Amino acid sequence: MDYAKMALDLHRKNRGKIAMATKVPLANRDDLSTAYTPGVAEPCREIHKDPEAAYTYTAKGNMVAVVTDGSAVLGLGNIGGLAALPVMEGKCAIFKAFADVDAVPICLDTQDTKEIIKITEALSLSFGGINLEDIGAPRCFEIEEQLQKRLNIPVFHDDQHGTAVVVTAALINALRVVAKELSEVKVVVCGVGAAGTAIIKMLIETGVRPSHITPVDKDGIMQATDEFLDPVRKRLVAQTNNTNRSGTLAEAMVGADVFIGVSAPGVLTEDMVRSMNEDAIVFANANPTPEIMPDVAKRAGARIVGTGRSDFPNQINNSLAFPGIFRGALDARATRITPAMKVAAAYALAGRVKPEDLHEDNIITSMFDPGNSEAIAQAVAEAWLKQNG
Amino acid sequence: MDYAKMALDLHRKNRGKIAMATKVPLANRDDLSTAYTPGVAEPCREIHKDPEAAYTYTAKGNMVAVVTDGSAVLGLGNIGGLAALPVMEGKCAIFKAFADVDAVPICLDTQDTKEIIKITEALSLSFGGINLEDIGAPRCFEIEEQLQKRLNIPVFHDDQHGTAVVVTAALINALRVVAKELSEVKVVVCGVGAAGTAIIKMLIETGVRPSHITPVDKDGIMQATDEFLDPVRKRLVAQTNNTNRSGTLAEAMVGADVFIGVSAPGVLTEDMVRSMNEDAIVFANANPTPEIMPDVAKRAGARIVGTGRSDFPNQINNSLAFPGIFRGALDARATRITPAMKVAAAYALAGRVKPEDLHEDNIITSMFDPGNSEAIAQAVAEAWLKQNG
Repeated sequence: MDYAKMALDLHRKNRGKIAMATKVPLANRDDLSTAYTPGVAEPCREIHKDPEAAYTYTAKGNMVAVVTDGSAVLGLGNIGGLAALPVMEGKCAIFKAFADVDAVPICLDTQDTKEIIKITEALSLSFGGINLEDIGAPRCFEIEEQLQKRLNIPVFHDDQHGTAVVVTAALINALRVVAKELSEVKVVVCGVGAAGTAIIKMLIETGVRPSHITPVDKDGIMQATDEFLDPVRKRLVAQTNNTNRSGTLAEAMVGADVFIGVSAPGVLTEDMVRSMNEDAIVFANANPTPEIMPDVAKRAGARIVGTGRSDFPNQINNSLAFPGIFRGALDARATRITPAMKVAAAYALAGRVKPEDLHEDNIITSMFDPGNSEAIAQAVAEAWLKQNG
Repeated sequence: MDYAKMALDLHRKNRGKIAMATKVPLANRDDLSTAYTPGVAEPCREIHKDPEAAYTYTAKGNMVAVVTDGSAVLGLGNIGGLAALPVMEGKCAIFKAFADVDAVPICLDTQDTKEIIKITEALSLSFGGINLEDIGAPRCFEIEEQLQKRLNIPVFHDDQHGTAVVVTAALINALRVVAKELSEVKVVVCGVGAAGTAIIKMLIETGVRPSHITPVDKDGIMQATDEFLDPVRKRLVAQTNNTNRSGTLAEAMVGADVFIGVSAPGVLTEDMVRSMNEDAIVFANANPTPEIMPDVAKRAGARIVGTGRSDFPNQINNSLAFPGIFRGALDARATRITPAMKVAAAYALAGRVKPEDLHEDNIITSMFDPGNSEAIAQAVAEAWLKQNG
């Protein structure tokens, strides 16, 4: 399929992908007097008395701002806020179609960390959640952390946590297929940007031993002594590579059980896969061209291969998680998305493949699994309520 | 009708009044690959090459941000951004229902002029227009002016210009009924805040002689020598009250042809109306309680009376104008809304009452006149294209 041409046609024909809709009738004078002035003054007064009433009388509780600065868009890089708009609209359309979340694209004309925080904080009033999107590392870490400190609604950087949830779900099922335990496997995470960082944190949260994780970037195995590392990654590297190992990706791969790539096309070679432990698992998520092509990885002995692509088995697609995660967080009126909620989401997503259907080429469900978002939402809401109910 | 109770019920039942909608199918893998990754990269690339392409490939060209700081909401005053949300949602619902404009409420958690400008500028990328709403004077003047200087999309403070357009339309028709000319009538404008200021400017733009306009505030006739006046109003008062008249509202009213109130309940007395010129026109727009009740004004000799209320004849309702004005500006891809476009809107709105239907109690059309927004839109678009086509 020529998706490029199809996409241009679709976007041109529809002038984008999203629109507003009204939920109330406006067909006569009484309708107007109820939805607008003078009646509307009454819900305003209620909210003025008690800000919580905004969840009762407005759409706030189902509205999510999809905020970007356009600094790290898909495989396109730093194309700025305006050019990122088609991606943000796509995200909003997926939110609506898969989880009935009302999401609005907010493309910012600044890439200054402090300004992004200030602006997003100031415009958050009418939203029940903030989905940060395609904001580059390390800026994204501080933006998310500061916003979550200041706001009492969930702030979620999907490139980090959405990806981490889906990768973790895929890993949970892959390990079931090869009968290995999270606490035993050795994992190489290649590419420690926004997604890689969140993946490492989540692997630890889920039970992988920190010292079993080897973080690798384009210069090889990462070391906490690297003076160019930002504080977030320095801590994480210190925690995982606690013996200060050094070496190339090839050296890191020897004896590994799992390779998780969120890096660049073609960086994983046949020889590297060959050097892995038996029943090797390879998640090559670089998009659209993976770190290694699935047939090559299989030929080199990998037992399970996943990619970000829809034209191969085991698509590790981060759209599988975020609609349900926000649905659950909004339903539970969570004020943040905790690690436990993300782990719950990963297990719920993994659970969408029934034990009897689980095999090498079916470790993760598809976007069109009709109960997926609902199952994730329920697990996420329960996890919140368990801690805060 | 008990609109307060009805409003609470309606807002609670629907959890607000607006939602998002998708304009494209997302029912299978090809849909997703076209609307989202990998296809979506192509429109992103086109917009990155040429920002104008955002109007072709995204919803930007039909999206309007309804921005407020909640500082001057309806008759409620400074209730803040969150409590203003029901009004903003109502505005967005009206935009959609009456002119198919996709509008999003942006309630800001700041009332600092510079911050509002900076934030609105930064978030404007995904919008084709900015509707400023319920922002108090004089802050609103600087915010609108600065934003319009910085942005190449229309920035329109509806409390100012929407109200001015509707009042002007009503005046055009009222003068037709009483057979007086704009260039001859003497007008008292009572209440020179955001709306009053815009009304005075527009009256001048439409042909009322500046020296025939008497600006009055709660302390009486306004004088340019008043040291508390901000620059915008100082200029306007100098231009209108150019003989530095002083006195009370009662003194200003003697011999006036037209009273336009955007002030406070009950400030206009029977005696004041009695002192007006014959065929007096009284627009008492204070809401919900007008400057004078219509029956009282009529008894005192006013020939035509309009209010903001839907339960009396001649409802001067600013929702009559803004949906069509934005529709026209967006359709014409106008980069601003010029005085000529506002005058065109006023004449188009006035023209919705056919000459044979025009009488004392029918000087303005209703919200449910099905061709109204379209007629305004066409006139507004033509006015832009005439100057810039």
